[in-house]
Amino acid sequence: MTDMPIDPSVIESDNAERSTGFEADFAALGEQLERCGVAIDTIVKAVRDFTVAVPSWGVGTGGTRFARFPGPGEPRGIMEKLDDCAVIHQLGRSTPSVSLHIPWDRTDPAALKDKAQSLKLSFDAMNSNTFQDHPDDPKQPLSYKFGSLSHADEAVRRQAVEHNLDVIEFGQAIGSTAITVWIGDGSNFPGQVDLLRSFERYLESAKAIYGALPEDWRIFTEHKMYEPAFYSTIVQDWGTNLLIAQELGPKAYCLVDLGHHAPNVNIEQIVSRLIFARKLGGFHFNDSKYGDDDLDTGSIDPFRLFLVFNELIEAGEALERLDPAHMIDQSHNVTDPIESLIRSADEIRRAYAQALLVDRVALREYQDANDPMMASECLKQAFRTDVTSILAKARIMDGGAIDPIAAYRASGYRKKVAIERPEVKGGGGGIV
Amino acid sequence: MTDMPIDPSVIESDNAERSTGFEADFAALGEQLERCGVAIDTIVKAVRDFTVAVPSWGVGTGGTRFARFPGPGEPRGIMEKLDDCAVIHQLGRSTPSVSLHIPWDRTDPAALKDKAQSLKLSFDAMNSNTFQDHPDDPKQPLSYKFGSLSHADEAVRRQAVEHNLDVIEFGQAIGSTAITVWIGDGSNFPGQVDLLRSFERYLESAKAIYGALPEDWRIFTEHKMYEPAFYSTIVQDWGTNLLIAQELGPKAYCLVDLGHHAPNVNIEQIVSRLIFARKLGGFHFNDSKYGDDDLDTGSIDPFRLFLVFNELIEAGEALERLDPAHMIDQSHNVTDPIESLIRSADEIRRAYAQALLVDRVALREYQDANDPMMASECLKQAFRTDVTSILAKARIMDGGAIDPIAAYRASGYRKKVAIERPEVKGGGGGIV
Amino acid sequence: MTDMPIDPSVIESDNAERSTGFEADFAALGEQLERCGVAIDTIVKAVRDFTVAVPSWGVGTGGTRFARFPGPGEPRGIMEKLDDCAVIHQLGRSTPSVSLHIPWDRTDPAALKDKAQSLKLSFDAMNSNTFQDHPDDPKQPLSYKFGSLSHADEAVRRQAVEHNLDVIEFGQAIGSTAITVWIGDGSNFPGQVDLLRSFERYLESAKAIYGALPEDWRIFTEHKMYEPAFYSTIVQDWGTNLLIAQELGPKAYCLVDLGHHAPNVNIEQIVSRLIFARKLGGFHFNDSKYGDDDLDTGSIDPFRLFLVFNELIEAGEALERLDPAHMIDQSHNVTDPIESLIRSADEIRRAYAQALLVDRVALREYQDANDPMMASECLKQAFRTDVTSILAKARIMDGGAIDPIAAYRASGYRKKVAIERPEVKGGGGGIV
Amino acid sequence: MTDMPIDPSVIESDNAERSTGFEADFAALGEQLERCGVAIDTIVKAVRDFTVAVPSWGVGTGGTRFARFPGPGEPRGIMEKLDDCAVIHQLGRSTPSVSLHIPWDRTDPAALKDKAQSLKLSFDAMNSNTFQDHPDDPKQPLSYKFGSLSHADEAVRRQAVEHNLDVIEFGQAIGSTAITVWIGDGSNFPGQVDLLRSFERYLESAKAIYGALPEDWRIFTEHKMYEPAFYSTIVQDWGTNLLIAQELGPKAYCLVDLGHHAPNVNIEQIVSRLIFARKLGGFHFNDSKYGDDDLDTGSIDPFRLFLVFNELIEAGEALERLDPAHMIDQSHNVTDPIESLIRSADEIRRAYAQALLVDRVALREYQDANDPMMASECLKQAFRTDVTSILAKARIMDGGAIDPIAAYRASGYRKKVAIERPEVKGGGGGIV
Repeated sequence: MTDMPIDPSVIESDNAERSTGFEADFAALGEQLERCGVAIDTIVKAVRDFTVAVPSWGVGTGGTRFARFPGPGEPRGIMEKLDDCAVIHQLGRSTPSVSLHIPWDRTDPAALKDKAQSLKLSFDAMNSNTFQDHPDDPKQPLSYKFGSLSHADEAVRRQAVEHNLDVIEFGQAIGSTAITVWIGDGSNFPGQVDLLRSFERYLESAKAIYGALPEDWRIFTEHKMYEPAFYSTIVQDWGTNLLIAQELGPKAYCLVDLGHHAPNVNIEQIVSRLIFARKLGGFHFNDSKYGDDDLDTGSIDPFRLFLVFNELIEAGEALERLDPAHMIDQSHNVTDPIESLIRSADEIRRAYAQALLVDRVALREYQDANDPMMASECLKQAFRTDVTSILAKARIMDGGAIDPIAAYRASGYRKKVAIERPEVKGGGGGIV
Repeated sequence: MTDMPIDPSVIESDNAERSTGFEADFAALGEQLERCGVAIDTIVKAVRDFTVAVPSWGVGTGGTRFARFPGPGEPRGIMEKLDDCAVIHQLGRSTPSVSLHIPWDRTDPAALKDKAQSLKLSFDAMNSNTFQDHPDDPKQPLSYKFGSLSHADEAVRRQAVEHNLDVIEFGQAIGSTAITVWIGDGSNFPGQVDLLRSFERYLESAKAIYGALPEDWRIFTEHKMYEPAFYSTIVQDWGTNLLIAQELGPKAYCLVDLGHHAPNVNIEQIVSRLIFARKLGGFHFNDSKYGDDDLDTGSIDPFRLFLVFNELIEAGEALERLDPAHMIDQSHNVTDPIESLIRSADEIRRAYAQALLVDRVALREYQDANDPMMASECLKQAFRTDVTSILAKARIMDGGAIDPIAAYRASGYRKKVAIERPEVKGGGGGIV
Repeated sequence: MTDMPIDPSVIESDNAERSTGFEADFAALGEQLERCGVAIDTIVKAVRDFTVAVPSWGVGTGGTRFARFPGPGEPRGIMEKLDDCAVIHQLGRSTPSVSLHIPWDRTDPAALKDKAQSLKLSFDAMNSNTFQDHPDDPKQPLSYKFGSLSHADEAVRRQAVEHNLDVIEFGQAIGSTAITVWIGDGSNFPGQVDLLRSFERYLESAKAIYGALPEDWRIFTEHKMYEPAFYSTIVQDWGTNLLIAQELGPKAYCLVDLGHHAPNVNIEQIVSRLIFARKLGGFHFNDSKYGDDDLDTGSIDPFRLFLVFNELIEAGEALERLDPAHMIDQSHNVTDPIESLIRSADEIRRAYAQALLVDRVALREYQDANDPMMASECLKQAFRTDVTSILAKARIMDGGAIDPIAAYRASGYRKKVAIERPEVKGGGGGIV
Repeated sequence: MTDMPIDPSVIESDNAERSTGFEADFAALGEQLERCGVAIDTIVKAVRDFTVAVPSWGVGTGGTRFARFPGPGEPRGIMEKLDDCAVIHQLGRSTPSVSLHIPWDRTDPAALKDKAQSLKLSFDAMNSNTFQDHPDDPKQPLSYKFGSLSHADEAVRRQAVEHNLDVIEFGQAIGSTAITVWIGDGSNFPGQVDLLRSFERYLESAKAIYGALPEDWRIFTEHKMYEPAFYSTIVQDWGTNLLIAQELGPKAYCLVDLGHHAPNVNIEQIVSRLIFARKLGGFHFNDSKYGDDDLDTGSIDPFRLFLVFNELIEAGEALERLDPAHMIDQSHNVTDPIESLIRSADEIRRAYAQALLVDRVALREYQDANDPMMASECLKQAFRTDVTSILAKARIMDGGAIDPIAAYRASGYRKKVAIERPEVKGGGGGIV
């Protein structure tokens, strides 16, 4: 028996209000696509099949080194986080799985599984944490101030490896089949670490984790140009990430977080190169204007998001073999996190649907004929298509809301949990 | 009577060990400079006269949104912070003043002045804070989550203005004559704020603060491209900063924080333009590789620091009229903050001394003759000069240490305060 | 009597093929907008009234310092350039004016005016050129290698000023009322020029030009971060540009070229600030991914272009008083320049139409209520609207083509001029 | 018998003037280093052994897409270019080899070898060119406008491969043992090329070149983020470059051009990673502030150059096995190219000498003890050392000039060739 957090009648009632407009838009778009030889139902079906995981930490309000401004009803533990995740999926129908972060989300695995099942949720990739100290945890007596998997001291490295093995063990108990390893190791000053030796130490540690992976598991390593380390990071870009995946072996893949690159970098080309190398493991979706801003996916440069999906569709079978993981990884500093996650999942499906609309036969002809004008317009035409009604159709067919944010607001969920969950005071920088 | 934190015999003893090498280096440099027509004593004198303020918050360990790793002996209040600042000045002899941050440093003004006097310290520009909430402060009942001086709600703006007036009042009581206003206002999404209206609200608030400035005070506004706001900030660059200073009036000046610019920006040219506009108010010194990294001044790109000082020297009398304020503003995440501040003050004096060595008559001739090769070499030659012994000489003459970091380590100060000041647990992101 | 380059029957015939689809799309969009309380005809009318100038140099193939690859039928002089511009306007109906570049476009003014009239074209802002040498021009005996308006040598500065006065005189003869001054002055090495003195020289020269402006003329100065100078440029950003416009007087305004900024810079905020300062003079439209790439407007980041227009619409009456100039300024290296200009003018109108669709009453409410989610979605909803049929409607009503690029290809114009205009051999870098 | 371009008496005479100062500086530095346990003669010897190649195209004045401003006495062919290269080496004694660019430098190989021998020069890596069209060359009938090695058309790819094979053959005839392949392939618009397929075509072509490499040859591929292609380049970063070297085989290595990276990228870490992967092939040295500015090496960020050499020294034996190639690759737009190349070679040796001065035993201890302050200072101390007199000593011992630029100016070489080589008129963008 399930225990969905939003009363279905709220969704029905909100949908009813919007159905006339929605039906008209969907019909008009269907006709327009038909004139281009595209059956709208095919797109709807593909969209329904496309899902993305939400991070457990994403339902809490994030912050910066300067401050964190929590909102009402912040979840106080993994069980409440799962409730919030269930709201997102109930309304949006595209986020059936949750990615956990240990140590924060550690609890009794059986209870976790029961809770998830009751909410129709499952668990995606596990995330370990060795970029913070937890002085009260008896398993973490040593500090990560100067690194973890690449630390100069073998004892710290061992502690960090052990933590990852624990996370894998926990993940097995709840049905996860992957671990994402992102670490804060690096340096703030030229000379602080030996760039070569610290990388060798990292590899040695990563190999110890890799060696303990269950048969059906994958390990995702994640590159990040800077922050929290400000002169060098141990996995600074996809080149190093690729080297790592090559050194580790066939179960190791590279994770691409959209916000972790140098200014101006062509991210969709990195995606293409990782597909070529058969090492694309998946994505952490978000958007950014300056650095690793961790803003809502698609909110700053929606065309860039579309171009990433264009590469994925273009790759065709090669991608299917890779089966990349999709996860949102954002920091919600000024919005209701539930709303941001609903919206972002929608933007991801939007980019996916638009990429499906690209006329690939025509595109290839333009490319082979050196016709950059028409090739460019071929992509732009797909991007310009307003697929909002396709996304809504996919949600409706799965029991979700036409306008999930409106339905969420109508439900009064936030007000309810604001009462049930006493306010959390102050707090410094958020964890994202 | 003063109460210096380091036993003078420690300095004397450390200096004694190093004096032979130092004397030889100083003599050799003196001869080399003499061959170029420069009297080394002139440079030493100028260096002795050049000072820079340290920020009270700089003596605590900083952090990022991911974590903060405090070190032993963290100061627990403004009085202990002043002790640490006194160590820096006693050894380095270039940082006689401290810049306070309210609310953290608020205490009885008379006690503060006494303490400072006993340590031979004075107070530089005051810093207000409206980028964090202080829910326990009865004067701050309203949240700054969505802005302060530019907030949509007039009541929040008024609260923020009042806070600044309080800071000025407090500053007057301890002998400060300037206030630096940096705020976190801005937006994370296109559309979140109206760029024009929010700027007008900011100006209205800033004018209210300006109107309350004592006769002999200056107000410094500070631009910052991003963080904590990630789509727009209210004072995003020097252009907006200039507009503000123009709107406010003759006591308003622009502060340049070296880390607050877009990638690749020519900062020394901004300095030159602000001198032209007679609105250069001063500096927040630090260094950075990626964003607003707040690393130790001169640690990443020492030539850039030199070029900033080259503009200051070049400006000559025009600069004297402006009398810009110099302050270090860094985040010390992995070093002992006292050591970083000693070193950074030294790097600032180094750049200043090197800039003094530029042969300005020759430079002007090269410039007017369109000889970029020799003009470029003219600067490089000054920059290449190892002025370490000049800096040491200036310190010695004022009672400081030849090698202040070595003397600091020899003094055992950190070990001592680590015992006196019980460890502060955990903590999230640091405040910088 | 006019002499339009494309046979109207080509347009009619191409339109006929597309009219069914277009009518269906336009009707569906009209209904959708009506549900939101927007009358589609109002938008169509506004779009018809919105025009943008094309640059005479834009109809030739551009290049880079590495190579230029001309295409067939390159125009060999201003008269042929005007023919090409007429094609763009005949099909797209949004580019009735041409911006000239002197010395290249200098010819008999009366003949120029006649030619333009016969093509239903007029002349926009004039562009002077002091970033290249023209050794065969008796009026340009001195080299601009080391600068023009800011050159160390007064004789060079005078030559550059005289050139600008000539351009104004020529512009008066053909009905222009503005001059755009962009120069390549700057330096490649720290020290090469004195940043302050060279700026003062620039201002002196600019004042001499300003003093010669006819009563009804405006002068636009243009900032650019780098290239061709690689260490400093004389007008490096909007802050310096603002200083210049303030120094010169009420007829001086700042021109914003979208490609001339540092990485990550928020351009729409600069637009907003220049509106506040009443100094926004206009735009050079283009798009870019890395530096001043001069790619087709809207081809890389269409949302950014939309956000610029969002600021313009938001400014309302304040903008009307400024009456900013709109010009495309791009380098067409791999496309047929005519096609790129048709497409780009269309993208500009698209962004304008989308910005008109923003529900400004709702937006203001969201802003004042600190509801970043809905404010952000309010803009995104307008941006997502596929206004293609609105743009087509505006063209049709003015006699243009539903799909102007298709009609252009159907017309065979490029093949025709390829025969009439013998191929230009080789050539080094292009001028943009 | 050799035929050196500068009369040795000029060097002797200039050296004589400077010898007193030089001797004093060298002696003082020797004493200072001795106090640190370093024998200055060891450093001098190492510096004498360190050489760097100059590019044949570097002795001509470069330019931008906007203009090129040639200077007096521009070399009109490869023989005159060799004369200029000989001047650089005669004075600076660090540039005994020249890197040629085909087709420009193609001539009778035997004559070339004779000429080089008479000037005591040899030949470094060859450079092919498929980023420009040469319509008059019967071997290049097809255009590279839309690519070369990755072109959609197999015939163009074959032409480009054939050109590279020709270059190798020519290189063999003159004693070269390496080819550097940099191409301009890429795209200006999303969609223009299929990122995956075009890379596969590139690899196929590269393999054809690789297959034809003589036994003792190496192939260097070079990455570049952008320009002349502005949306994607085929070898955009070191990650792709690494993939290529891995796909090609053991004779394939990655070349690092310091100017070809995204803003803020940590280049020294890329060097470290390529050493780890055993694929570092060598360097193209230059400096930059904004994009691929191609400014004089060390003129903008000398500390960054030092940090690159620090990695090379740190790598020790691993580097010796790689034996990386060193070449200057700059564009001299406003300086006398001979002077810029002399200065740049000097800056490279300076960074090398400074890197040799790092106390590596101490550094390792600081790193292992997590002492970032002292580790950072350890590097800075080496960097601060003014090794000018070491560089002069190395030159003197090999017959060069104490101040090679001064000696060059004293020689009157430029004036002489300005008469012998009639001025080249105009010219568009330069080739760099």
